[in-house]
Amino acid sequence: MTRVAILGATGYTALELIKILLRHPGAEIVAATSRQEGSPPIGMVHPALHGRLDLTLEDLAPDEVARRAECVFSCLPHGASASAIVPLLEAGCRVVDFSADYRLDNPEVYAQWYGEKHPDPGRLGRVVYGLPELFREKIVGASLVANPGCYPTSAILALAPLLRAKCIEPEGIVVDAKSGVSGAGRTLKLTTHYPECNESISAYNVGRHRHTPEIDQVLSTAAGTRVEVIFTPHLVPMDRGILATCYSRPVGPIAEETLLGTLRDFYAEEPFVRVIDHLPGTKDSAGTNYCDVTARLVRGRVITVSCLDNLIKGASGAAVQNFNLMYGYPETTAL
Amino acid sequence: MTRVAILGATGYTALELIKILLRHPGAEIVAATSRQEGSPPIGMVHPALHGRLDLTLEDLAPDEVARRAECVFSCLPHGASASAIVPLLEAGCRVVDFSADYRLDNPEVYAQWYGEKHPDPGRLGRVVYGLPELFREKIVGASLVANPGCYPTSAILALAPLLRAKCIEPEGIVVDAKSGVSGAGRTLKLTTHYPECNESISAYNVGRHRHTPEIDQVLSTAAGTRVEVIFTPHLVPMDRGILATCYSRPVGPIAEETLLGTLRDFYAEEPFVRVIDHLPGTKDSAGTNYCDVTARLVRGRVITVSCLDNLIKGASGAAVQNFNLMYGYPETTAL
Amino acid sequence: MTRVAILGATGYTALELIKILLRHPGAEIVAATSRQEGSPPIGMVHPALHGRLDLTLEDLAPDEVARRAECVFSCLPHGASASAIVPLLEAGCRVVDFSADYRLDNPEVYAQWYGEKHPDPGRLGRVVYGLPELFREKIVGASLVANPGCYPTSAILALAPLLRAKCIEPEGIVVDAKSGVSGAGRTLKLTTHYPECNESISAYNVGRHRHTPEIDQVLSTAAGTRVEVIFTPHLVPMDRGILATCYSRPVGPIAEETLLGTLRDFYAEEPFVRVIDHLPGTKDSAGTNYCDVTARLVRGRVITVSCLDNLIKGASGAAVQNFNLMYGYPETTAL
Amino acid sequence: MTRVAILGATGYTALELIKILLRHPGAEIVAATSRQEGSPPIGMVHPALHGRLDLTLEDLAPDEVARRAECVFSCLPHGASASAIVPLLEAGCRVVDFSADYRLDNPEVYAQWYGEKHPDPGRLGRVVYGLPELFREKIVGASLVANPGCYPTSAILALAPLLRAKCIEPEGIVVDAKSGVSGAGRTLKLTTHYPECNESISAYNVGRHRHTPEIDQVLSTAAGTRVEVIFTPHLVPMDRGILATCYSRPVGPIAEETLLGTLRDFYAEEPFVRVIDHLPGTKDSAGTNYCDVTARLVRGRVITVSCLDNLIKGASGAAVQNFNLMYGYPETTAL
Repeated sequence: MTRVAILGATGYTALELIKILLRHPGAEIVAATSRQEGSPPIGMVHPALHGRLDLTLEDLAPDEVARRAECVFSCLPHGASASAIVPLLEAGCRVVDFSADYRLDNPEVYAQWYGEKHPDPGRLGRVVYGLPELFREKIVGASLVANPGCYPTSAILALAPLLRAKCIEPEGIVVDAKSGVSGAGRTLKLTTHYPECNESISAYNVGRHRHTPEIDQVLSTAAGTRVEVIFTPHLVPMDRGILATCYSRPVGPIAEETLLGTLRDFYAEEPFVRVIDHLPGTKDSAGTNYCDVTARLVRGRVITVSCLDNLIKGASGAAVQNFNLMYGYPETTAL
Repeated sequence: MTRVAILGATGYTALELIKILLRHPGAEIVAATSRQEGSPPIGMVHPALHGRLDLTLEDLAPDEVARRAECVFSCLPHGASASAIVPLLEAGCRVVDFSADYRLDNPEVYAQWYGEKHPDPGRLGRVVYGLPELFREKIVGASLVANPGCYPTSAILALAPLLRAKCIEPEGIVVDAKSGVSGAGRTLKLTTHYPECNESISAYNVGRHRHTPEIDQVLSTAAGTRVEVIFTPHLVPMDRGILATCYSRPVGPIAEETLLGTLRDFYAEEPFVRVIDHLPGTKDSAGTNYCDVTARLVRGRVITVSCLDNLIKGASGAAVQNFNLMYGYPETTAL
Repeated sequence: MTRVAILGATGYTALELIKILLRHPGAEIVAATSRQEGSPPIGMVHPALHGRLDLTLEDLAPDEVARRAECVFSCLPHGASASAIVPLLEAGCRVVDFSADYRLDNPEVYAQWYGEKHPDPGRLGRVVYGLPELFREKIVGASLVANPGCYPTSAILALAPLLRAKCIEPEGIVVDAKSGVSGAGRTLKLTTHYPECNESISAYNVGRHRHTPEIDQVLSTAAGTRVEVIFTPHLVPMDRGILATCYSRPVGPIAEETLLGTLRDFYAEEPFVRVIDHLPGTKDSAGTNYCDVTARLVRGRVITVSCLDNLIKGASGAAVQNFNLMYGYPETTAL
Repeated sequence: MTRVAILGATGYTALELIKILLRHPGAEIVAATSRQEGSPPIGMVHPALHGRLDLTLEDLAPDEVARRAECVFSCLPHGASASAIVPLLEAGCRVVDFSADYRLDNPEVYAQWYGEKHPDPGRLGRVVYGLPELFREKIVGASLVANPGCYPTSAILALAPLLRAKCIEPEGIVVDAKSGVSGAGRTLKLTTHYPECNESISAYNVGRHRHTPEIDQVLSTAAGTRVEVIFTPHLVPMDRGILATCYSRPVGPIAEETLLGTLRDFYAEEPFVRVIDHLPGTKDSAGTNYCDVTARLVRGRVITVSCLDNLIKGASGAAVQNFNLMYGYPETTAL
């Protein structure tokens, strides 16, 4: 049994994480933190958890968290997350970080996209990116895992195998991604106020979404050369799910079946990536840790389509998959 | 041509009002107020109005509003609305008030339900309730019209004719009402944050919704005796529309056709109430000023069902209907 | 390990049942039937199951089903279900029937509401109604369990404890229920065509919904006297969830806390009914086997509100709960 | 006053067309056809029209339609539409065709994409494509107007000005388009069954959507060279609206402001295209005849985004705009 704590437990990724951990035979939730006053029972903040978990949200100091837990999931926002994680690592905890703080290797890229200096630049470049399909072996022994962003997971799983196999050109890749609203978090904003975003689809943060450098970095590693994607996120009126439609040019003449075969080979042993022939809808993987991937060749252009649940494979499911690898539980436990 | 101003123009009822007024041949929008800094163009606050109306939102004093406009629509919240309206009336403007400030006759009832003293108690009891189907004649000459609440309009149109005709008992009436989310306004709240209310229906403010005394008051007038309804509002994951399912007991043995006939007779000359035989969906009246009403007799109980668009017949359409009556335009103009 | 078969596996309740059984350590799905031609893989009919279950949908005769399986879940429509179940029972299978065929005790009531003669009238009156909260003991040893309807579960769990405790009058009870669209099944109909029912709420089958006699029957048993409810179902634009708002009169003066206390006492040992103080939304129980219940006293009238997931506690979760009781697994297994 | 008839009046484009024509001072609807039995009142087929239009749906022969009406809107499916239109043209009617039958110039392209021989190939190449922003002058005098497809309108309005001005390369253009479900029509299909498509986004008909050759053809005319787009349509869980995100390469170094300026110049006199600086949501133009367009330059790639209401600017609003041009009404009448 592994004692786990959750930092910043009031949001949607924390809720989803708790739901998964509640059915995990090897995890015991021993603390959940929040700066909310009065240490409310978790069922008051997340009505779905009423009667399922006897825990209050507490404003705990790092040493108290470290005293209680072996493994810490940080659902804090970037910046705050690194600041909270440093003392936990020093106290011997192992950490899965949901924020972007340890995803990028280069503190200057972080500063450029996040608009502030990285609070712990020394660790950058040595933290494993928690995408088991690409970095499983490093995750197993890691003390700190940078849990991937939801959009990057969808884009990387759709493109990395084709880049690695030199099927597609690394230049000029377009990632047109569509996400449900839970991806924007639980903080109130006009753009996610129901009557504003319901019955409407819109592109947002075009050319400046912070997941861009993360996609670039991991695809560059896969391609063995610098990749810079054109990434356009869209907000879709649904709770959860991401669909990424990715456009690239083949390196040479290629058959659609070769594209699918390359994907199938790459993911042959993966428990959570389904390479499919049909065109997926996000609903097919909603509520699961699956990512569905397929490919098409259209007028000489390669189109890869991937679907996943942004809160599960795109966040909390991936985090538990990493947790399972780190602590030696079967990788699919509770997923 | 009537010069009109809109107070508190940042919300949904104001947006809908402007859309209607833009196609009204007799109305010219000469001012729209808001406390937003910097006098933003209205198309910045309401992107749907971009390029359709050359107007900035201004923080105007009452005398400036009165200088520009003959008729003022107040979309301000209760309390603030009465305070803004008093000087306008004194300056000779005619006013349609979207707030609840002038709907109730009794300042004590107001204080009880709204939790504060009424800012202008002297006018209460002398202001016409702007429901043309019941009070058309008084609206015509009014200088101040209290535009009805959205729930009350749905409940009253479904029940008043049957109460007036003594078809149903005034005691024990249940109004189970379901509303789209725009009814909760544009102010950010967790309950109307998309991932909270999408894919969920809930009852709220059970036993203490502020529209209760308004329904009581108008139905009491219709019944000629005190009516106290059991009113239960629900939040439905859709933008707009109210469906009210009302339960009452017949005064004596009655046929379903008599119920429908009573409704048909009552609304025979009404341009915006459709008495129908089928069961309506809110979509049938969405985007229109119609209210659809029908009745059923089930196991000796009378069920009346009404549907309307909460932003139109439940707010801005009704306001323009009142405006048309006040200024002598054909009642259906722009509606 | 119990070998289970599913009859009529193309619909939503079957899909949800399979998802639950896939995580059940004691159930092995050995057959899934359908009249679809060509024995398609189940992942072709239900893309969400792609890669999760290696099974084809087959058009199997009862004796083949009985040869393979010990326990059969019938997701067939009423009429067809009884016809398929009779030979299975005779062959020694135990059956959980999702249809209405064995829910009513009286074949005449069945004929009246379902418009056809019951195909197996001799068994009626001897089949246990599969609501563990009321009939757990009889379920344990049953060879045939009539799985409750989704609406009846929501209404009964909200009302039965108060009727049994004589807190509320059995006469004049109103059940105003709101359901997500999955409750209408996977068969194509104009009323559930997306552009028809999205962004719309409507009442349907007022006074003639077939769940009415089922609610009557079970509440009559609870009350010890004849109960006839006024039941009004509504279609809500969301995938899943039922909220029932039930109106009744207290037997005598009663406090709200007494109502809540009566519910709390009744469900004290129940793993899947949460008596709560706040007003629930259907999202709180979506995807779970929970039913949330609360009560309010408004102007001398009792309002009970219940929420559940129509496909889980209202169908497939309840079926697995029954299965667990029948086969001696812990009642909450896989739920 | 122009007497108009509508062929195939049971679908959503016909409903929307009727709503617009009802507020058109110059149009009188004299016939609406359907093959439904029994000549139902239109309010029975479209409950939203109840009480608004006293008309029955009739199964009329072309000569009877021609006898009653001057102008005919055909909302029939492709194939059937051309067959119905030919005799109407011969009888002297002027026609706006909502189907694809007269949009393509080349009968072989039609045969290739629609899988059947064109029923009236002789007229192809001589019919004006009813997009006023490009072909206004030809529409004015036309006896037959091919009303554009919804996707093509969104793609063409976003791209044609930049192609014509040689700002972007004609090769390798990607049109990633997202549509609400009403675009799929009123015919029942599993893909548009509410519980299938709600809360899900999916790509469909990748590489083989029939709007592809239409986009190609009009953009080729604009570019003065052959254009073949990569067109990927997506189904979004909302009633109406299309957002097209278009990716292209600039011809040479170009500033974002030049792109926006080119669009602004092109549409300077257009009443229904709004070139905006912000990123639009489909809701901003929902229920209107506007198309919102903007452009961004991201990592050397041009991204143009357009939004419109697929049933209005993408169908019935455009048809009335064409009607206004054909019959000399102010172009914005009723729109």
